[in-house]
Amino acid sequence: MCGVFGVFNNKSAAELTFLGLHALQHRGQESAGIAVSDGYDINIRLGSGLVTQAIKEEDIKELKGDIAIGHVRYSTSGGSNPKNIQPFFAHFYGGQFAIAHNGNLVNAERLKRELEMEGAIFRSTSDTEVFVHLIAKSRQPAPPHINLHKNDEDFLPHVFEAMKKVKGAYSLVILREKQLIAVRDPHGFRPLVLGKNRSGSYFVASETCALDIVDAEYLRDINPGEVIVIDDAGIRSYYPFEHTENPKKCIFEFVYFARPDSKIFKDWVYSVRKEFGRRLAKEYPIDADCVIPVLDSGLLAALGYSEESGIPFEIGLIRNHYVGRSFIQPSQEIRDLSVRLKLNPVRDVIEGKRIIVIDDSIVRGTTSRKIVNMLRRAGAKEVHMLISSPPVVSPCYYGIDTPTKEELLASSMSIEEIRKFIGADTLGYLSLEGMLEAADKTKGYCTACFTGHYPVLDELFEEIQIP
Amino acid sequence: MCGVFGVFNNKSAAELTFLGLHALQHRGQESAGIAVSDGYDINIRLGSGLVTQAIKEEDIKELKGDIAIGHVRYSTSGGSNPKNIQPFFAHFYGGQFAIAHNGNLVNAERLKRELEMEGAIFRSTSDTEVFVHLIAKSRQPAPPHINLHKNDEDFLPHVFEAMKKVKGAYSLVILREKQLIAVRDPHGFRPLVLGKNRSGSYFVASETCALDIVDAEYLRDINPGEVIVIDDAGIRSYYPFEHTENPKKCIFEFVYFARPDSKIFKDWVYSVRKEFGRRLAKEYPIDADCVIPVLDSGLLAALGYSEESGIPFEIGLIRNHYVGRSFIQPSQEIRDLSVRLKLNPVRDVIEGKRIIVIDDSIVRGTTSRKIVNMLRRAGAKEVHMLISSPPVVSPCYYGIDTPTKEELLASSMSIEEIRKFIGADTLGYLSLEGMLEAADKTKGYCTACFTGHYPVLDELFEEIQIP
Amino acid sequence: MCGVFGVFNNKSAAELTFLGLHALQHRGQESAGIAVSDGYDINIRLGSGLVTQAIKEEDIKELKGDIAIGHVRYSTSGGSNPKNIQPFFAHFYGGQFAIAHNGNLVNAERLKRELEMEGAIFRSTSDTEVFVHLIAKSRQPAPPHINLHKNDEDFLPHVFEAMKKVKGAYSLVILREKQLIAVRDPHGFRPLVLGKNRSGSYFVASETCALDIVDAEYLRDINPGEVIVIDDAGIRSYYPFEHTENPKKCIFEFVYFARPDSKIFKDWVYSVRKEFGRRLAKEYPIDADCVIPVLDSGLLAALGYSEESGIPFEIGLIRNHYVGRSFIQPSQEIRDLSVRLKLNPVRDVIEGKRIIVIDDSIVRGTTSRKIVNMLRRAGAKEVHMLISSPPVVSPCYYGIDTPTKEELLASSMSIEEIRKFIGADTLGYLSLEGMLEAADKTKGYCTACFTGHYPVLDELFEEIQIP
Amino acid sequence: MCGVFGVFNNKSAAELTFLGLHALQHRGQESAGIAVSDGYDINIRLGSGLVTQAIKEEDIKELKGDIAIGHVRYSTSGGSNPKNIQPFFAHFYGGQFAIAHNGNLVNAERLKRELEMEGAIFRSTSDTEVFVHLIAKSRQPAPPHINLHKNDEDFLPHVFEAMKKVKGAYSLVILREKQLIAVRDPHGFRPLVLGKNRSGSYFVASETCALDIVDAEYLRDINPGEVIVIDDAGIRSYYPFEHTENPKKCIFEFVYFARPDSKIFKDWVYSVRKEFGRRLAKEYPIDADCVIPVLDSGLLAALGYSEESGIPFEIGLIRNHYVGRSFIQPSQEIRDLSVRLKLNPVRDVIEGKRIIVIDDSIVRGTTSRKIVNMLRRAGAKEVHMLISSPPVVSPCYYGIDTPTKEELLASSMSIEEIRKFIGADTLGYLSLEGMLEAADKTKGYCTACFTGHYPVLDELFEEIQIP
Ligand SMILES: Nc1ncnc2c1ncn2[C@@H]1O[C@H](COP(=O)(O)OP(=O)(O)O)[C@@H](O)[C@H]1O
Ligand SMILES: Nc1ncnc2c1ncn2[C@@H]1O[C@H](COP(=O)(O)OP(=O)(O)O)[C@@H](O)[C@H]1O
Ligand SMILES: Nc1ncnc2c1ncn2[C@@H]1O[C@H](COP(=O)(O)OP(=O)(O)O)[C@@H](O)[C@H]1O
Ligand SMILES: Nc1ncnc2c1ncn2[C@@H]1O[C@H](COP(=O)(O)OP(=O)(O)O)[C@@H](O)[C@H]1O
Ligand code: SF4
Ligand code: SF4
Ligand code: SF4
Ligand code: SF4
Ligand SMILES: [Mg+2]
Ligand SMILES: [Mg+2]
Ligand SMILES: [Mg+2]
Ligand SMILES: [Mg+2]
Repeated sequence: MCGVFGVFNNKSAAELTFLGLHALQHRGQESAGIAVSDGYDINIRLGSGLVTQAIKEEDIKELKGDIAIGHVRYSTSGGSNPKNIQPFFAHFYGGQFAIAHNGNLVNAERLKRELEMEGAIFRSTSDTEVFVHLIAKSRQPAPPHINLHKNDEDFLPHVFEAMKKVKGAYSLVILREKQLIAVRDPHGFRPLVLGKNRSGSYFVASETCALDIVDAEYLRDINPGEVIVIDDAGIRSYYPFEHTENPKKCIFEFVYFARPDSKIFKDWVYSVRKEFGRRLAKEYPIDADCVIPVLDSGLLAALGYSEESGIPFEIGLIRNHYVGRSFIQPSQEIRDLSVRLKLNPVRDVIEGKRIIVIDDSIVRGTTSRKIVNMLRRAGAKEVHMLISSPPVVSPCYYGIDTPTKEELLASSMSIEEIRKFIGADTLGYLSLEGMLEAADKTKGYCTACFTGHYPVLDELFEEIQIP
Repeated sequence: MCGVFGVFNNKSAAELTFLGLHALQHRGQESAGIAVSDGYDINIRLGSGLVTQAIKEEDIKELKGDIAIGHVRYSTSGGSNPKNIQPFFAHFYGGQFAIAHNGNLVNAERLKRELEMEGAIFRSTSDTEVFVHLIAKSRQPAPPHINLHKNDEDFLPHVFEAMKKVKGAYSLVILREKQLIAVRDPHGFRPLVLGKNRSGSYFVASETCALDIVDAEYLRDINPGEVIVIDDAGIRSYYPFEHTENPKKCIFEFVYFARPDSKIFKDWVYSVRKEFGRRLAKEYPIDADCVIPVLDSGLLAALGYSEESGIPFEIGLIRNHYVGRSFIQPSQEIRDLSVRLKLNPVRDVIEGKRIIVIDDSIVRGTTSRKIVNMLRRAGAKEVHMLISSPPVVSPCYYGIDTPTKEELLASSMSIEEIRKFIGADTLGYLSLEGMLEAADKTKGYCTACFTGHYPVLDELFEEIQIP
Repeated sequence: MCGVFGVFNNKSAAELTFLGLHALQHRGQESAGIAVSDGYDINIRLGSGLVTQAIKEEDIKELKGDIAIGHVRYSTSGGSNPKNIQPFFAHFYGGQFAIAHNGNLVNAERLKRELEMEGAIFRSTSDTEVFVHLIAKSRQPAPPHINLHKNDEDFLPHVFEAMKKVKGAYSLVILREKQLIAVRDPHGFRPLVLGKNRSGSYFVASETCALDIVDAEYLRDINPGEVIVIDDAGIRSYYPFEHTENPKKCIFEFVYFARPDSKIFKDWVYSVRKEFGRRLAKEYPIDADCVIPVLDSGLLAALGYSEESGIPFEIGLIRNHYVGRSFIQPSQEIRDLSVRLKLNPVRDVIEGKRIIVIDDSIVRGTTSRKIVNMLRRAGAKEVHMLISSPPVVSPCYYGIDTPTKEELLASSMSIEEIRKFIGADTLGYLSLEGMLEAADKTKGYCTACFTGHYPVLDELFEEIQIP
Repeated sequence: MCGVFGVFNNKSAAELTFLGLHALQHRGQESAGIAVSDGYDINIRLGSGLVTQAIKEEDIKELKGDIAIGHVRYSTSGGSNPKNIQPFFAHFYGGQFAIAHNGNLVNAERLKRELEMEGAIFRSTSDTEVFVHLIAKSRQPAPPHINLHKNDEDFLPHVFEAMKKVKGAYSLVILREKQLIAVRDPHGFRPLVLGKNRSGSYFVASETCALDIVDAEYLRDINPGEVIVIDDAGIRSYYPFEHTENPKKCIFEFVYFARPDSKIFKDWVYSVRKEFGRRLAKEYPIDADCVIPVLDSGLLAALGYSEESGIPFEIGLIRNHYVGRSFIQPSQEIRDLSVRLKLNPVRDVIEGKRIIVIDDSIVRGTTSRKIVNMLRRAGAKEVHMLISSPPVVSPCYYGIDTPTKEELLASSMSIEEIRKFIGADTLGYLSLEGMLEAADKTKGYCTACFTGHYPVLDELFEEIQIP
């Protein structure tokens, strides 16, 4: 997962992008970058780690210009690879541009091979570069149903053609010398919103919380399949695909990824999460003394469960705010204490009580196991674990860095086996139906990681071998 | 405010102290330090900033030994002064020791002057050094009622004499070549607890949450006026004062400072804070749609208010986890956005609603004002602000870095004036009586910052000019 | 200017490259990078600043593999641009490779435009990427006169074709999954040497001093127009050009750039520089009390002058070793002292004396002016400045970052005017003939910056507008 | 060894001290610190490493005031101990002061014990703190022969009394709220000079090269036993000792420590070093092809040898400028290459030649051995090593961090044995007489490390057990 941000027409473009990325920090902590155009040239600064580590005050000062884009990158298994830090810069025959990408292409490898056969070189191992090449290669005119503004004639047809070639999830921001462009894939896997502030600057962001931090108003979602161009001539919208796809919004954004104060896919994450909790309460009416969240991801479902069931909500596990990446490598003897660095039980709440503990999902199960154990050692009489989503049985191919199928506990264990593994008295997962209804299923969601049915992948099953 | 930690008899003494300080990080972010004894020599590493910034992995490796103490220091107005970073090391005729201090002495200046007249030099501007000198100077034998273990004959009389001379608040840990000593002032202003782990290591800490992180059991509080010595001959307790003082535990520890998962003064912070909220609900029954906390300090009072009143509890303001010290200096244009870096309203919760917002205290009032304003801009119909303690009218002289009387809003404004200033529809403070009852007033509390009646200061009013 | 290094068949490939770059640090201080292949994948670490700043110990540990290349980059006017840090990584249809480049292409812009017209994208603003694209695009077979080893059939024809297309200066190292390739342009502008150590590892480096630091023997120069391939099948040499070009070795390498302990172009820099000094003595027999160098570049010419003339050699200006990049930005009042940070006169040597001071070249003249002034303030009776090369009148287009013609003092001022500007009693430049003879002119040198006659540029005068 | 610097009456006091310390960097690289007074308060910033690492630009900005002192500290065996970084700050009954010290007291341990018996605490393990205590303790009036200016009545008698109590080497700068004081011990072991700039600021520094960098004129040496006070009332000189001691200037300052562009003990280091070389030439007339220095310490002696003997001077070993502290920890396989990081032979100069190589001294002999070996591998036919001082047979107790007697090669080996150990064809040391005459022996020098006769120590032989 990643976060993208863009701003048009603001003297402090780099600084606002810095703030926006800060608000999107939860979408990626591996690296961060900002690209700015002064109308003629595009300049980039990027680095590893959190936004405040990757980009320094002097970087911001050097990034002069009124248009900017930014990116935060999610921590992936392979560690921090400097080749892949975004935004990517490109110079092609049509000029310069920079691009930042949230999502994952399912036909990237095939396109890469094709492009390489035509002489393309790839300087990263990231999908995003496929886009860059497709844009630069393209020679097709715009589709006939599209009426292009004259400012868009030179570049946009390239973007359209690239969009036709790639399959998968992408919410993009593109920076040109004098334009900001935002693109969302036709299934609309990843969120992307448009905003405007009182002095007339435009903003594009993965989530509305990034609009809030720059004091901009949410205007609307960028729609699945839509391309938005912003320049001195105003703001224009294009739909390069003639046929609409079924929307396949990532329901996991509601379950886990997005921030609770964001509105994504036209709904408030906050309400949807609470509704997950309410439905959990209906599906699993348990006799207990209190409901506690695994902070932060279980917070709102626990609140919803409490409201629906009447069982008191308590903060039974405190989350330490200061846990960071740069923590000392604990010695062998001390390693076992490492869970405690992040979460600590409030014995006062736990001791002698029957506890319902709620988290958003179980992936490998090791953290859940430690939590159950920690609660028991703090004196819990019973520990009932509820999960505000169905079992994760399959990896995501659309931009969320889930582990392989083998590592997913639920791909090989029954719920009862998982319950035993983590040591809980009860283990309950929200039903698929319950989850979809909470999120308003008419809107069209991807649920592949819960079901194994991949919306885009199925059509291309030669691409990826689903294990 | 500050936090102290000590460990005796553990191969990983420095590493455990690092963890303990990490759990006490909320008690001080300005600087941190660790002193370790290998039985012969005391070694120190310290630095500015958070524990992870001040102390590096290689520092930990260099700090070899089985006994250690540590300190986190609170951010004071004067900025980070390297002279004052603790623990302090001292070599005197009786050998080496290191000391770390939580609290504030009210007669420090007078003692300093006296000591200086006798030739003492002070290398810091901190109270703690007064202690160090008093210990080194002392020539008095132990008080007659005290029966000293032979290991304690050389050093402890110094500590006793020092304790007799100083007035004020102090919870100390002292590291000697082969001993760990813990000291709490006779009024017991600041908390200090004793713990032990399964392999027989002893721990001393400001709060129990620091015992949790090292997987130690809470044994008991170190009592007001008590001195505890731990060495190879075991653990011994002394009470150097013949007459007991009235305990004057700092009630503000419950209101704000201590972590909710800690037990201090033999009570759980969590429960006391919730009880503050319940009493607020009784004192201020308001008709509203929801109760929201100002995170984190208002969290539990808001929960208590909700439970007592039946008004739903919501997380109406999200707190960004990644706000740190090293944030870029915002340019003039951007400065106004800076509240948003820390807190963001959840519009979904706020819009069109009558909101009760709860915080622990109001100091200068600027943050409260911004919060009310932010809630109104997010669409709140009514904003009722409740505070889980009485108005702060006077500075603290016992170790909490409150601003001067002039800067304390409540020292010069009536509650109605404050209400207008912050722009709330209602402003209510918990009554002194309500606060004390919630915390069990029979235990003996200092409430000077709420009342202006200073327990120790009164006897010494020549010392400090109360404005 | 830049430095390149390569190693084949060594367990500590990354570490040795680190050392090699360290020895080449004088060729570039802006940034540094290392790429390593473990036989299957290529991994890169890079950063800004000196080698020790750009590459950390943990980077070295992560760079596992037996083949490596490295690069140090010269500080250019535009400041440190992260896009341009080398080595560059590329994935194309033939696999992965990484490339590091010393030199400058004169037809880069035209090739870039052509490549872009065919859909290429450029992710940096550096010439080197042109090479990368040409390699990836190429479809030509090897030239008929070349007999390819079977290991070289897939990749080397690409390199040959790229070499045919580019014009200008390039000494390259290319890292493939299982090969190390070294390439030198047909004019041989930049040095490139081959070495081997006692355990059979091969090395390629810009200068022999980098062989010394890894304890490798110098085998021979890589010849102008030569391509060398090293892999498990051994070491092979190819000459893709059928007709030999006149060698155009950069004489400025002898004048300034190369380290005095290096052998380049088959000659020792040390001896050539001393000979420059001896010839200066013949051309400018001055009656003086001592000869002093402007350290370090004037050192050996001063020694040669002294030997030839019999005038004593002294170190009249001490050079501070600790001047680095991270120096504080001096305040306005202090700025004038900044020359002193680098050089300080030895009054003992200077006072009351007639001084000959020798430097390698004068570019903008500001430093020379300050030096003359500093010597006079230290009491010099006469200051005679001699320069061990002719006046620099034209910019370099082959990889040395000289300023524009306008900024070159000698492009618009007569020698007498320069003498007045810097305030010297005498100013003498080594004659072109003298310089060439000292370096053995039969070897074929570029002298364009001294004469304005550009060897490669002339044939392509449509490419660059010579001002 | 260490370096001290002081400035009085300059708006940029901290910045100039930063520059001054920079020029004194060769006297200590372990840590650095600056103390500044704004007339009322003294503020300190300090840290580990080089001046540019220890003190940051923002530190300089925070250090406001017109009077400042600074210190660079020499690397001692025990590694960097934060307790001991200077300047030291002290608050005593007479106010605040800060102190920085170059030297070593021989009776520090005894004084420490005495002071501790009277209740003093030591917060460092450094001698300097003894001074601080003695100043603060003192109650004696000034000696009768001294006529004190009224500004000096309160503080200076303390300094005088302290000076009477300590034995050993000290050149001190003391910063008070409104005064700068400079002190030199009665034997004058360490240099200390006074300077003034054109705008009337005064400066004190260990060496004149630090005056040069701030563009100040050398006025005179501070004399052995002299105390100089500078404040708004002007500059005053005192001699607290009635009887003059024999000067015992450290001859090793000329041999090795001071910078060649400095004037110390009223003589130019440059000339004295060259004279060492000339005398070496007379004492060891060797038939050789060239003379080369071990840079930098052997530079001027080699030049002097060459001048006297007529044998050509060459730079046969290049010294890498970029070797710093933060170098990667070389792996086992690579460790042997580490000499090469610092020095590299110029094969051109060495091959087939009979070489005289000159260094200032031999301590443990390991470096000399590696150098001889390196020269032989570079093809030297003969290697004659000459040393510009006599064999070091005894440790220094006056502030130079020599190893213990056991580690000193010459304390247990004959010259012939050392010659064999390092592998040279000849090994010659400058005679004691030769060294003293070169430095003008009438001035009074300490030569204890060469002779074992300790000037101050002998009187106090109970203090230190000379091995
Ligand atoms: N400031 C915040 N306050 C509350 N929730 C947040 C905040 N930032 C991110 N979140 C939510 O926190 C969850 C991720 O945090 P958490 O569960 O603590 O991390 P993890 O489980 O990955 O360690 C997500 O659901 C995200 O929506
Ligand atoms: N990890 C934690 N979780 C919840 N509360 C915490 C945590 N750490 C500290 N606290 C509490 O948070 C409060 C301080 O945080 P907060 O109100 O956010 O800071 P401030 O108001 O000083 O900016 C204190 O009441 C403290 O007890
Ligand atoms: N370690 C070294 N010792 C002596 N000369 C060196 C060394 N490293 C580089 N050089 C030479 O120093 C010169 C560059 O240094 P210098 O003149 O001091 O720098 P600049 O003039 O660019 O400030 C070059 O001629 C280079 O060959
Ligand atoms: N900038 C400089 N130029 C020449 N000599 C210097 C300089 N700075 C210090 N020195 C001298 O260099 C010597 C120390 O350097 P060097 O011999 O290289 O170090 P070491 O032998 O301790 O490794 C001393 O004699 C000192 O006087
Ligand atoms: S597979 Fe899961 S995580 Fe991935 S897009 Fe679909 S719902 Fe979201
Ligand atoms: S004055 Fe207030 S903050 Fe200080 S100790 Fe008393 S109750 Fe606590
Ligand atoms: S123009 Fe000058 S610097 Fe450039 S390659 Fe030719 S000789 Fe060298
Ligand atoms: S013993 Fe040697 S180094 Fe020490 S002061 Fe005397 S001459 Fe100098
Ligand atoms: Mg979670
Ligand atoms: Mg708060
Ligand atoms: Mg130079
Ligand atoms: Mg040396």
